[in-house]
Amino acid sequence: MAEHESGAAAPARLWGGRFAGGTDALVERLNRSLDFDARLWRHDIQGSIAHATMLGEQGIIPPKDAERIVQGLREIQEGLADGSLVLEQAAEDVHTAIESLLRQRIGTAAGRLHTARSRNDQVATDTRLYLREAIDSVSAGLRRFQETLVHLAEQELDAATVLPGCTHLQHAQPVLLAHHLLAYFWMFQRDRERLAEVRARVNVLPLGAGALAGTSFSISRERVAGLLGFDGVAENSLDAVADRDFAVEFLAAASLVMVHCSRMAEELILWSTPEFAFIELDDSVTTGSSIMPQKKNPDVAELARGKAGRVFGHLLALLTVLKGLPLAYNKDMQEDKEPLFDAADTLEAVLPALERTLATARFRRERMAASLRRDFSTATDLADHLVRQGMPFREAHHVVGRIVRDCLERGLGLEDLDRESLVRFAPEFATLEFGTADAWASVSSRRVRGGTAPEAVAAQLARARALLNSRDS
Amino acid sequence: MAEHESGAAAPARLWGGRFAGGTDALVERLNRSLDFDARLWRHDIQGSIAHATMLGEQGIIPPKDAERIVQGLREIQEGLADGSLVLEQAAEDVHTAIESLLRQRIGTAAGRLHTARSRNDQVATDTRLYLREAIDSVSAGLRRFQETLVHLAEQELDAATVLPGCTHLQHAQPVLLAHHLLAYFWMFQRDRERLAEVRARVNVLPLGAGALAGTSFSISRERVAGLLGFDGVAENSLDAVADRDFAVEFLAAASLVMVHCSRMAEELILWSTPEFAFIELDDSVTTGSSIMPQKKNPDVAELARGKAGRVFGHLLALLTVLKGLPLAYNKDMQEDKEPLFDAADTLEAVLPALERTLATARFRRERMAASLRRDFSTATDLADHLVRQGMPFREAHHVVGRIVRDCLERGLGLEDLDRESLVRFAPEFATLEFGTADAWASVSSRRVRGGTAPEAVAAQLARARALLNSRDS
Amino acid sequence: MAEHESGAAAPARLWGGRFAGGTDALVERLNRSLDFDARLWRHDIQGSIAHATMLGEQGIIPPKDAERIVQGLREIQEGLADGSLVLEQAAEDVHTAIESLLRQRIGTAAGRLHTARSRNDQVATDTRLYLREAIDSVSAGLRRFQETLVHLAEQELDAATVLPGCTHLQHAQPVLLAHHLLAYFWMFQRDRERLAEVRARVNVLPLGAGALAGTSFSISRERVAGLLGFDGVAENSLDAVADRDFAVEFLAAASLVMVHCSRMAEELILWSTPEFAFIELDDSVTTGSSIMPQKKNPDVAELARGKAGRVFGHLLALLTVLKGLPLAYNKDMQEDKEPLFDAADTLEAVLPALERTLATARFRRERMAASLRRDFSTATDLADHLVRQGMPFREAHHVVGRIVRDCLERGLGLEDLDRESLVRFAPEFATLEFGTADAWASVSSRRVRGGTAPEAVAAQLARARALLNSRDS
Amino acid sequence: MAEHESGAAAPARLWGGRFAGGTDALVERLNRSLDFDARLWRHDIQGSIAHATMLGEQGIIPPKDAERIVQGLREIQEGLADGSLVLEQAAEDVHTAIESLLRQRIGTAAGRLHTARSRNDQVATDTRLYLREAIDSVSAGLRRFQETLVHLAEQELDAATVLPGCTHLQHAQPVLLAHHLLAYFWMFQRDRERLAEVRARVNVLPLGAGALAGTSFSISRERVAGLLGFDGVAENSLDAVADRDFAVEFLAAASLVMVHCSRMAEELILWSTPEFAFIELDDSVTTGSSIMPQKKNPDVAELARGKAGRVFGHLLALLTVLKGLPLAYNKDMQEDKEPLFDAADTLEAVLPALERTLATARFRRERMAASLRRDFSTATDLADHLVRQGMPFREAHHVVGRIVRDCLERGLGLEDLDRESLVRFAPEFATLEFGTADAWASVSSRRVRGGTAPEAVAAQLARARALLNSRDS
Repeated sequence: MAEHESGAAAPARLWGGRFAGGTDALVERLNRSLDFDARLWRHDIQGSIAHATMLGEQGIIPPKDAERIVQGLREIQEGLADGSLVLEQAAEDVHTAIESLLRQRIGTAAGRLHTARSRNDQVATDTRLYLREAIDSVSAGLRRFQETLVHLAEQELDAATVLPGCTHLQHAQPVLLAHHLLAYFWMFQRDRERLAEVRARVNVLPLGAGALAGTSFSISRERVAGLLGFDGVAENSLDAVADRDFAVEFLAAASLVMVHCSRMAEELILWSTPEFAFIELDDSVTTGSSIMPQKKNPDVAELARGKAGRVFGHLLALLTVLKGLPLAYNKDMQEDKEPLFDAADTLEAVLPALERTLATARFRRERMAASLRRDFSTATDLADHLVRQGMPFREAHHVVGRIVRDCLERGLGLEDLDRESLVRFAPEFATLEFGTADAWASVSSRRVRGGTAPEAVAAQLARARALLNSRDS
Repeated sequence: MAEHESGAAAPARLWGGRFAGGTDALVERLNRSLDFDARLWRHDIQGSIAHATMLGEQGIIPPKDAERIVQGLREIQEGLADGSLVLEQAAEDVHTAIESLLRQRIGTAAGRLHTARSRNDQVATDTRLYLREAIDSVSAGLRRFQETLVHLAEQELDAATVLPGCTHLQHAQPVLLAHHLLAYFWMFQRDRERLAEVRARVNVLPLGAGALAGTSFSISRERVAGLLGFDGVAENSLDAVADRDFAVEFLAAASLVMVHCSRMAEELILWSTPEFAFIELDDSVTTGSSIMPQKKNPDVAELARGKAGRVFGHLLALLTVLKGLPLAYNKDMQEDKEPLFDAADTLEAVLPALERTLATARFRRERMAASLRRDFSTATDLADHLVRQGMPFREAHHVVGRIVRDCLERGLGLEDLDRESLVRFAPEFATLEFGTADAWASVSSRRVRGGTAPEAVAAQLARARALLNSRDS
Repeated sequence: MAEHESGAAAPARLWGGRFAGGTDALVERLNRSLDFDARLWRHDIQGSIAHATMLGEQGIIPPKDAERIVQGLREIQEGLADGSLVLEQAAEDVHTAIESLLRQRIGTAAGRLHTARSRNDQVATDTRLYLREAIDSVSAGLRRFQETLVHLAEQELDAATVLPGCTHLQHAQPVLLAHHLLAYFWMFQRDRERLAEVRARVNVLPLGAGALAGTSFSISRERVAGLLGFDGVAENSLDAVADRDFAVEFLAAASLVMVHCSRMAEELILWSTPEFAFIELDDSVTTGSSIMPQKKNPDVAELARGKAGRVFGHLLALLTVLKGLPLAYNKDMQEDKEPLFDAADTLEAVLPALERTLATARFRRERMAASLRRDFSTATDLADHLVRQGMPFREAHHVVGRIVRDCLERGLGLEDLDRESLVRFAPEFATLEFGTADAWASVSSRRVRGGTAPEAVAAQLARARALLNSRDS
Repeated sequence: MAEHESGAAAPARLWGGRFAGGTDALVERLNRSLDFDARLWRHDIQGSIAHATMLGEQGIIPPKDAERIVQGLREIQEGLADGSLVLEQAAEDVHTAIESLLRQRIGTAAGRLHTARSRNDQVATDTRLYLREAIDSVSAGLRRFQETLVHLAEQELDAATVLPGCTHLQHAQPVLLAHHLLAYFWMFQRDRERLAEVRARVNVLPLGAGALAGTSFSISRERVAGLLGFDGVAENSLDAVADRDFAVEFLAAASLVMVHCSRMAEELILWSTPEFAFIELDDSVTTGSSIMPQKKNPDVAELARGKAGRVFGHLLALLTVLKGLPLAYNKDMQEDKEPLFDAADTLEAVLPALERTLATARFRRERMAASLRRDFSTATDLADHLVRQGMPFREAHHVVGRIVRDCLERGLGLEDLDRESLVRFAPEFATLEFGTADAWASVSSRRVRGGTAPEAVAAQLARARALLNSRDS
């Protein structure tokens, strides 16, 4: 029987009886996943404790051995947490490394842990446990960002800050800064909704699928699910080990978070140019130049914008990996982890840094106001006046277009025109109230739900706050 | 006033009063979207009818004019549907083309339609109406495919068809073909769930956001939402016109559908090689060669596999377009439509063709059975026997590994070994029941929920049928 | 023999003898490529003429028949060109459609054309002929754009236009506008180099590879290559029909062209905001709004920026299609054409429109100059002065950093400081020449090769012109 | 002056005089690049030595100081190489960390090193030095793989190994295994050509561009280029610091290498299934299962296939990062390094492992031969016979298609038919030589250049060998 023990001498792999020769070093290096899956050690132990507990309860392994396994795993968990233990770097993967530590600690009973399971269902379980945590962490970061947005919007609504609303980056119509900030609230709200939906599909237990076909041992998957906090169990063992949809889903949701961050980042970058100067970023969130002593660069915003690329790349990478794979598990799927980890890390780093950047920025309200002067952004209001006097909108649009052209040729703004000048273009202007071409009047008039008028924005803020205060949020 | 009418002479654009010169032909060509957005004509008219109805009801435009507009649009709808009308090819976009037809039909009252709206909120509305339909169509296609899978699984469960289940495309453990087919059922089930969730976020009305800031007219967004069947209204006008998250979400969901189709396609391609020969595809779903008279090619499966690439490409294209765009609408966003249309078209073409390919295939059960002979795919069952006799799994794995190696060296399969041969490797084999190394015994033993045993698969089938019969499905 | 003629009755496909049943309509629709490959008709005929000519010369088919085929193909070419002929819409692909037209015209001799060739090598040939043309067209477009850049740079060098050079979109150091424009010259130069290299790999003849294994007929591939202007022949028949590297390469080169266009586009968009106002775009390259009468939008630039996404998407789509395909031809590869066509079309539309946008823009030199005031962009020059006086650069950087901070606190610019103020920070400023902090002095001092000083830019312009005038360009 | 020294106390950043407050920890973490750019330390020192040498020679810094800098950098290089020195982990980036080490060693003279340069041109130089090396390493790996392919092809040509050549993964025509293997030779040859072209564009010196505008010091860029082995200098300083085209180009070339590896990998995976069994992989390149004792998995091939996804992802990520960036340097561009490093690492790991997998595989020639029996893959040869007798190919194709159908219905192969049976389908078969439907006869007949006949393959091998032996290769 000594021969069976030979496994103990080479704990770096969990297989080998069938193999005549050793593994090529080049191949071992390519194959080894410990470099990146080591970070799943907590989840791996958590899953193994639940599995061993159930195996003992079901009498599949001797209850005494189950206890020793659970106790051993708990000690390993503590040891890894406090640094008194380390994973063996030569091990093939995190599962092997932990089983090896367990064997060193409790001997051959460790060999019973892998009863009725395979690395295929084990790694799927670990990854889902990890991702559940990552989603919760990202969602919490989004929520904090939303709170900051609500806070800033309240402040700027009180301050009645108006800036040029843009389409095509050209001045379109004046809007409240509070309204502008809240646009990002809703983007992040959708992000949180999506993540919650992904989480529901992540939170399904694959364990019990075995290698691919289920197991002949009378395990209780429901018990393991209960111990690990999963909402349900995977209904098909082949699918359970072949499925990485949840990882793609997360990467897609993460990509949209990065789209939103990159859009805000672009605006922060634009607004902190000397030409716009709508905001001044705090020294604490900017950096300087090694050569130009005057530089103060919006690095956080630039990185938030740039890092969108890496998350999109991860999404594409995983889709490409999965495309055309036959059932069930294929080694290609080992490529799921690095994109997942890096995307979650990226979000967890970008969200608070960008939030801090916005929260500490000084809004230069006087510059925003100055930018609205003679910018023609109230032209629509003049056209709307004509419509109220009965002119079809198309005509009104045309009339005001001609007024604008006339002003441009004469170097004037709309605010420079008096009623007589306007009446020359259309008699309907005779009834124009003073100040229609004024930015504040324009903003105040857009009282429709979702519009930029102060009372509409106040109502929007109330809805936003209600969402943040709701139980599910 | 004649001058105002000049718009009528150049109906190809809805703006221009402000412009001194005409548009460069190169630019007009690049800018024009009619070539692809023409297919939104039904949705554009549908949205305009609702908008005009509401404008009339609210007294924003004369009720008589509202009636004429609605009537005119209905006639245009009929005319376009029956081909008696065509969109003017010189028009800038579908909105312009339809307003132009309306003007030809009812005169200047047509100019009142665009009151309190912009193309920015209009096109977002049209796109959402289109996508809602596309999602429903794709979901229905998925549901039909699931029914086919359930039907085939029932048939093959009755036939007790067993094939080698694979991991790494190597024989792993025998599985029921019914079980294998049902793996795809669950993939498509997740696809339908995702699409339902996307649909909820699609089905929100942007109209009323105007160009970006809302409108000063006292419109009723809720009324328009009700007329168009939207579940709610967008809460922020800037976000309403700048948001294309829903399109990205659909493309991400569509990409996963294509991942699933491509995985099935790969299997169909493999299984119809002469070497596997697990299935024979029907002549009606294959094609021949222009040079090799014997060829019968699995084109549908190959295209299903290949077309995954185009859908992934569309997803990445749109993410790239949106990255870093400042608020609110930017012309870049016009690039959302072609990927959306092509992805939906691709799914609508691939799903039924692939379903047909599977449904008409002949399963060659005898070849599957033959492939299981001497393939060692019941080795795990031997190890599990040892575990039941008290041996730790790690040891059992090692013992059976050595048995396999021994067999390979001697040119035998596991089924060629008698009890005595096995006992030489481990005395625990003395209690081995006859046939443990038999594929059917192996399959039958995996009775765990989600496993491949006939009763487990029957339970799985029942759950699948229940899902198909549920009201929401 | 009548039976053999049955092919004539169903010209929509080139195969079928082996098939018992017809093709499912769903499948036929998915499979058909005529909708997009029809645009290869000229190249298909061109290739067939060369092939038939060679078959006749080699005596593989009767010379008389070769003549009739060539003559027939020439007539079809004319007919399709002048619209008197059309491709049969029911045909499977362009090859089938053209062979069918030929059969209608010259009868059964048409059946000899496909001797010693397959659609696999035929379509590869057609695609390469198409791409060769597309590359030449894109390269010519790039060259014209370079000429415009050189022309504008000459003009702005003469005008001595200076603007703030930016890093991180913050003012960094003043640069000549001519220098800034020439940066794009070099990007396009690299684009043309890349395209020339791709072209060399495109311009290799696959014909003669047959379906995959070559042919037993004594064809002359060199003769066909000569007739079609190919530089060489593919050396391995399996590779010849399985290779789409050249298409990926083109899409990668096209993606970089779009990166460059999108970068210029971003700058044009920024520069035409009211806040920057460094340029004014011509009316002819902008568009208006359906609702806001004052709007003048930089649509071309936005589309140039946005359309980068679609080209990246095509690149990724094709890479995904090819990944993991076994040899030789697979139907998945039919997915190569649409991305290729659309990418080429996009470049051919974007390049001239963007060039026109730049060429017709009015540079607002006074705004650029104004933007340099009190912007600290000459801070490096002050530090460099200290270095010339012997201070290590790190110290000098630190001293000037403190000067900048001091100015900011006091609301001053560097140009507001006199020598005494500076000397208080470092005695080395006693030797400072008047005007070191002046933008023009700064620009003029950077005389290093590739730098922004007028004489350096003049030298750069000379190199650029030389490249445009070189024979290969 | 003590204050100037304060920089020495905080060596973790090269700027700061202008800043009132410190940097937020969140921001510092996001911003820091040392974690990944540390691996550029050799290239950074190499570049700095060349720069300092030139500064001394030009008299821009005191020659004595230049010598001390160069000497100091050499010692740091040795220290880092032998582990006696480490980079300060708190430093912002590798440039800062090395300058800090230098300052510790030689004092304030270290502060002269950064004269006339910026991190913008420095990092571009470092990255190009790194990439030049990486390209050479990858190219050498490709070359070794080509040698292996040539060696195996020679061996299998000698052994006259024939296997079914496939299109659509269906048997198409028999081919020599040597021919099949050489298909990959040409793919790798194109890869090497592309890499050589990329290398030429990488090998251009950006240093001297300064931050973006060049420098006012009288540096010699040509001297630095000479010292570092660059072929030329960047002609425009803005472009020099803003350009990352070369990195995209490398990622595109790397993606194609991975396409080729993934295609070969797919074939190795297929061929080592029990159903194909065309090859047996060596134990040393395969791995086992933690649960299934019999498993022997083709992990290297699966990882080679899967890792294509990650490289495509990196390509897309960088394209996305660059899209729409204004000139010149933006912080987003810091995202270039990780994709570049990981892509190069991936290629350097995959190429030798895959080569080893192929080189150690046992080709099971008897299985290949068996697979050709009754597979109809010589049907084209029968049709070609009819053509030689004067029948148009289209007719011949149809006749043989009917023969195949007849055989299928009767359960026969083409080799089971005698001349009389064939003559019943077409009298032209009367002259058919015995063995036309034989695989070897079929292979031998395809003597066209690039075809699969032994003499054609021998000629192909000679060309391949010549390429490997050519000086440039």
